[in-house]
Amino acid sequence: MSDNSFGQALRMTSFGESHGKAVGVVIEGLPAGLVVDQEKIQIWLDRRRPGQSKLSSNRKESDIINLLSGVYKDRTTGAPLTVVVQNEDVMPEFYNDIEAGWARPGHADYPAYVKYGGYNDPRGGGRFSARITVGFVIAGAISHSLIKESLGIDVAAYVKRIGAVEARGLNFEEALNRYDYSMRCPQAEANERMEQEVSSAKKDGDSVGGIIECLTTPVQPGLGQPVFSSLDSELAKGLFSIPAVKAVEFGAGFQASGWRGSRNNDIYEIRKDAIRTRTNNSGGIIGGLTIGEPLVIRVGFKPTSSIYLPQQTVNFKEMKEGTLSLKGRHDPCVVPRAVPIVESIVSFTLADMAIRGGMIRQVLRKDR
Amino acid sequence: MSDNSFGQALRMTSFGESHGKAVGVVIEGLPAGLVVDQEKIQIWLDRRRPGQSKLSSNRKESDIINLLSGVYKDRTTGAPLTVVVQNEDVMPEFYNDIEAGWARPGHADYPAYVKYGGYNDPRGGGRFSARITVGFVIAGAISHSLIKESLGIDVAAYVKRIGAVEARGLNFEEALNRYDYSMRCPQAEANERMEQEVSSAKKDGDSVGGIIECLTTPVQPGLGQPVFSSLDSELAKGLFSIPAVKAVEFGAGFQASGWRGSRNNDIYEIRKDAIRTRTNNSGGIIGGLTIGEPLVIRVGFKPTSSIYLPQQTVNFKEMKEGTLSLKGRHDPCVVPRAVPIVESIVSFTLADMAIRGGMIRQVLRKDR
Amino acid sequence: MSDNSFGQALRMTSFGESHGKAVGVVIEGLPAGLVVDQEKIQIWLDRRRPGQSKLSSNRKESDIINLLSGVYKDRTTGAPLTVVVQNEDVMPEFYNDIEAGWARPGHADYPAYVKYGGYNDPRGGGRFSARITVGFVIAGAISHSLIKESLGIDVAAYVKRIGAVEARGLNFEEALNRYDYSMRCPQAEANERMEQEVSSAKKDGDSVGGIIECLTTPVQPGLGQPVFSSLDSELAKGLFSIPAVKAVEFGAGFQASGWRGSRNNDIYEIRKDAIRTRTNNSGGIIGGLTIGEPLVIRVGFKPTSSIYLPQQTVNFKEMKEGTLSLKGRHDPCVVPRAVPIVESIVSFTLADMAIRGGMIRQVLRKDR
Amino acid sequence: MSDNSFGQALRMTSFGESHGKAVGVVIEGLPAGLVVDQEKIQIWLDRRRPGQSKLSSNRKESDIINLLSGVYKDRTTGAPLTVVVQNEDVMPEFYNDIEAGWARPGHADYPAYVKYGGYNDPRGGGRFSARITVGFVIAGAISHSLIKESLGIDVAAYVKRIGAVEARGLNFEEALNRYDYSMRCPQAEANERMEQEVSSAKKDGDSVGGIIECLTTPVQPGLGQPVFSSLDSELAKGLFSIPAVKAVEFGAGFQASGWRGSRNNDIYEIRKDAIRTRTNNSGGIIGGLTIGEPLVIRVGFKPTSSIYLPQQTVNFKEMKEGTLSLKGRHDPCVVPRAVPIVESIVSFTLADMAIRGGMIRQVLRKDR
Repeated sequence: MSDNSFGQALRMTSFGESHGKAVGVVIEGLPAGLVVDQEKIQIWLDRRRPGQSKLSSNRKESDIINLLSGVYKDRTTGAPLTVVVQNEDVMPEFYNDIEAGWARPGHADYPAYVKYGGYNDPRGGGRFSARITVGFVIAGAISHSLIKESLGIDVAAYVKRIGAVEARGLNFEEALNRYDYSMRCPQAEANERMEQEVSSAKKDGDSVGGIIECLTTPVQPGLGQPVFSSLDSELAKGLFSIPAVKAVEFGAGFQASGWRGSRNNDIYEIRKDAIRTRTNNSGGIIGGLTIGEPLVIRVGFKPTSSIYLPQQTVNFKEMKEGTLSLKGRHDPCVVPRAVPIVESIVSFTLADMAIRGGMIRQVLRKDR
Repeated sequence: MSDNSFGQALRMTSFGESHGKAVGVVIEGLPAGLVVDQEKIQIWLDRRRPGQSKLSSNRKESDIINLLSGVYKDRTTGAPLTVVVQNEDVMPEFYNDIEAGWARPGHADYPAYVKYGGYNDPRGGGRFSARITVGFVIAGAISHSLIKESLGIDVAAYVKRIGAVEARGLNFEEALNRYDYSMRCPQAEANERMEQEVSSAKKDGDSVGGIIECLTTPVQPGLGQPVFSSLDSELAKGLFSIPAVKAVEFGAGFQASGWRGSRNNDIYEIRKDAIRTRTNNSGGIIGGLTIGEPLVIRVGFKPTSSIYLPQQTVNFKEMKEGTLSLKGRHDPCVVPRAVPIVESIVSFTLADMAIRGGMIRQVLRKDR
Repeated sequence: MSDNSFGQALRMTSFGESHGKAVGVVIEGLPAGLVVDQEKIQIWLDRRRPGQSKLSSNRKESDIINLLSGVYKDRTTGAPLTVVVQNEDVMPEFYNDIEAGWARPGHADYPAYVKYGGYNDPRGGGRFSARITVGFVIAGAISHSLIKESLGIDVAAYVKRIGAVEARGLNFEEALNRYDYSMRCPQAEANERMEQEVSSAKKDGDSVGGIIECLTTPVQPGLGQPVFSSLDSELAKGLFSIPAVKAVEFGAGFQASGWRGSRNNDIYEIRKDAIRTRTNNSGGIIGGLTIGEPLVIRVGFKPTSSIYLPQQTVNFKEMKEGTLSLKGRHDPCVVPRAVPIVESIVSFTLADMAIRGGMIRQVLRKDR
Repeated sequence: MSDNSFGQALRMTSFGESHGKAVGVVIEGLPAGLVVDQEKIQIWLDRRRPGQSKLSSNRKESDIINLLSGVYKDRTTGAPLTVVVQNEDVMPEFYNDIEAGWARPGHADYPAYVKYGGYNDPRGGGRFSARITVGFVIAGAISHSLIKESLGIDVAAYVKRIGAVEARGLNFEEALNRYDYSMRCPQAEANERMEQEVSSAKKDGDSVGGIIECLTTPVQPGLGQPVFSSLDSELAKGLFSIPAVKAVEFGAGFQASGWRGSRNNDIYEIRKDAIRTRTNNSGGIIGGLTIGEPLVIRVGFKPTSSIYLPQQTVNFKEMKEGTLSLKGRHDPCVVPRAVPIVESIVSFTLADMAIRGGMIRQVLRKDR
């Protein structure tokens, strides 16, 4: 099974564990001749790196990329591109409790133990850790260059909600300076209240969830494949692969379930010689295909499962109940760090679907 | 590309168009020796068939299955199982407007025209019609037998909301008699109000959306694959392939984004010698794996795009604006008919993931 | 598993059994707008049909195609194209011996029984019958149109050897009128001796094997994908899926194993402003990629396993030895009927690889 | 596209280039709990390493494996297993001629240039070098442990022919000590004549081809999947992915094309309470399934394309003819070094097919 791979024409294969030697990704299907901007990849990785704010985990990872294959003279060659990031700040001793059989509530320790007959790597959740999204972001940064250069598509996500604090909806231009804000919510006042929400949860040894909204510039119509590879199907598959995601909706989403068709239907009109819709309740996707509008995607994150408050739980090796107090370093809220991860999955999916639809030439010619 | 296929170990390949000769499905990977209950398939198909209520489309389709391959002496053989359903009540003349270039708001006519260079079958949306879910339901009914017989898992979805009417949440046993209710909401009072909601929309030449909640009996822990084939990833991919779906969430879903970890985490405990959780905010899935609890999935449907009210739109062949009045036969609300479709996707995905995880033996032996 | 599917960008899914209701194929990934020439498909099917010569099986099948989906106004739509052929002359009673557990030497009855726990369809080999190549030929005829129209590639195979009779090697033009010869060997004298070889085997209640050589016109350089999807890898995978094939070689093949590099290397030169090679020992493929030369592929077929001579064998249900005399209708030599099947696999593989390499535009535009 | 991946249930993704930083492999689908014997992997790699004999290339590579992920406490975890080998002895300056546009006869320089628009890595063939088979052998060594431990299958290949020297056919036991012989032909006299054949070619600045025969112990019946994933289809796909392979045959192979059915059919009989065949002309595979006999596979290699004799060729950048004298370090015969590569592909394919067929449990339980 290719459970660790995502994409068809463009394909990333993720590997690595939280407290193993390294995490990384193999990317196949990039057209030859694309400039690989290592500095940009590093910037994207820094955006998801712990320690960017006083409210994130204090695990110390420099996340320096090591490009093992697929690039020659700074451009893609058509061969698989492999990038590895060493794990530096591994503290497996924090996880003796899991190894002893104590299930952390909200974590996959127990079902993974059952699935893998006890052979899974238990340190920090092993393969189930959000640390593996390092590879998603590497693939995302490169894909973003591809769709921006070849199709002119840009992607920007921002934090729409943390706990009880909800920001107003933004358009693409307003979302662009999201990384200037600690909580990745480019509304000064909302960002500050979100900070307080996280700070207060942290003080209580608790955590808090949130919602990310991802926007794009208008995408040319007809991107997407039929039926099971509809653009929304593929985006959702990718987004639910991000740890802690519990909900995904497009455009008006669940809200449209309460509406009538006459309100929800986006009326087509001609604007500047192009077919556009007056509203964008569809979130830019109809019948699994783009319609020429921006994408609007909302992704719901549960609160971090790792909290410092003592919790009742069970020991799955000894089949007994008990109380667990977590050690280790945890984010009271993962949502701000997840913004570049969401952007990465969206960029990668758009790139894959564009290649599948024949919208990106397989080879960017040297002589162009 | 295998855009028309879903599943890996168990795989369905969908084919057919709304007003072509037939719709159908090829199912690969069913273990040999499974009894194929044609009557059950027919019952499931009848549940999604138009004309089941005075509030659904009056297109007349008997939806009689024709089993072309893969069955011998009423059991699966290990060979691909092919089922075809003829389209009987085709009225392509209703769709002359689309063929002439008039885009129906909310439909894929325009992006499909762009994607396929004008060669797509425009009749009733062609490949983009919900008629193709006939194949999903055939595959779903068979998969349901497989997971029920081999793993004891049962699946039941019900209508949780239509327009402004929301039913209270039900448990699995309460949901079981859903098909005794016209709106598939097994709460007499809510069902009646939903009927009024649809009736009122119909009278206005309009349509209305809704939400389906899908429940299962407890699923044994450890079902699901890592990362990109997490159970929620695969379920979401399948569910977003159902026409009109715009939102999917698991367990507490978007609501959990407003909560703290101490509230959201499901506490593990030992009940009747089994590890269970006290609450089920996760909807039965953590880290992409089942945890031994029932699945809880909510699926948001937009209101039917086809409404009888005249709508402004554009002609994409002539690049001009105009007003379109739809002919054809349309459901004012597709949600009740979508209940067996949601159950089918969930049953099929569980069966695929169970085979992938080695939880169902590939061959059901004759001599057992 | 998608064991019944072949190709990635272009994909055929095969279904059906020898003595079931029907055999057929679903073809995904054909660019929209390709003319589907049903008459041509029928001609290709007729070339593999039994009863074309007095030396082939006298099973009577008219092999009339029924196009179920994917075509509108005689052109592909981008939707999966499904074609079904009914089985007419089914005589399952011929196969009571297999059902009783008697293994036909050279056939898959015994391993299939083990693999499928006794649930496989035993009639005429069921899924393991060469009857399923009807679907290969349908897909092949359509693919041939695609590569011929878009890339100018033509394909012709001929019978190079039957039993002890070996024809001299032919070039593409000489091979073209192969279907005017009963044995598909366009050398009158060799064809006649081959006929005698088959006739003599038939008279003895025996069968005989042979070799097919498949040629193409020059294929533009760079078709093929790296490593595991090298053109030779994909061609070999497809060719070994044809029943009775036991050997595949390209260009000089096994013979080159006895040569030195200085003899085997094809020297590059410039001919008519194009890079060409002086010899074609590579068979047109180097490093898995085409080099601008014709393809040369040889495919070895074992003699038909079904012979009328009584054979010793075992009963796998009762674990006893015995003697089996086959009933049913069998070709004393399948090689002539396999010519269009080999051409089909080669055409289909070239089409798939051309789409994967971006050499065929996904959409053939209406307005070109 | 997953062109760089092989296998379905067990899957290897190959990466790296001849003169880049590293070559390696990601292996997915290994059951959890399998002991990973790093010493064994190293032994297998040493068998393919250059410099093992005075007749192989003098490129110096220590080929030390670096296990990046997927192993915990020396056992597989169910997560992807990643292994990297650094390239040490890179001499890209040898390849200035290719970079300048001179096509080496027999190499992919020219078609790769066309395919990748000039962006491919030209150093030593880049991605098209046999150096990438390092990853095949790593995956092979691990797969070999899996099939040996779980199914008792062992694999041994030996050199059957080099140039004009052909050894007699061996049985499995005779083949076992192949690595005690310089040419991997465990017949002292034939091995010595093969050495002379290579030595003589080397002295002439030339190269020579050969044939490898791969044998296994008897494989339990029913391994293999239907139609396009027949065991021979999958083996051939993998084997043709090894650089320089031009021919593959099973059992009697091409020879059977000259035989009658009565000679070729392997008669079933009962031996020691098991169903066996008297002869093994099928090479252990009928209808794509194993029949309980040993596999017999022959693989034809062309002579090394890199020879020191000056060769006429063309410059594909400047479209002119000229003469090329190769620098670099080349094997006069790759066949002996290819023996572990063939064994690796066969072991890996058997492991993949066994998992797909449900013959290996997905999890090897800790408590067994």
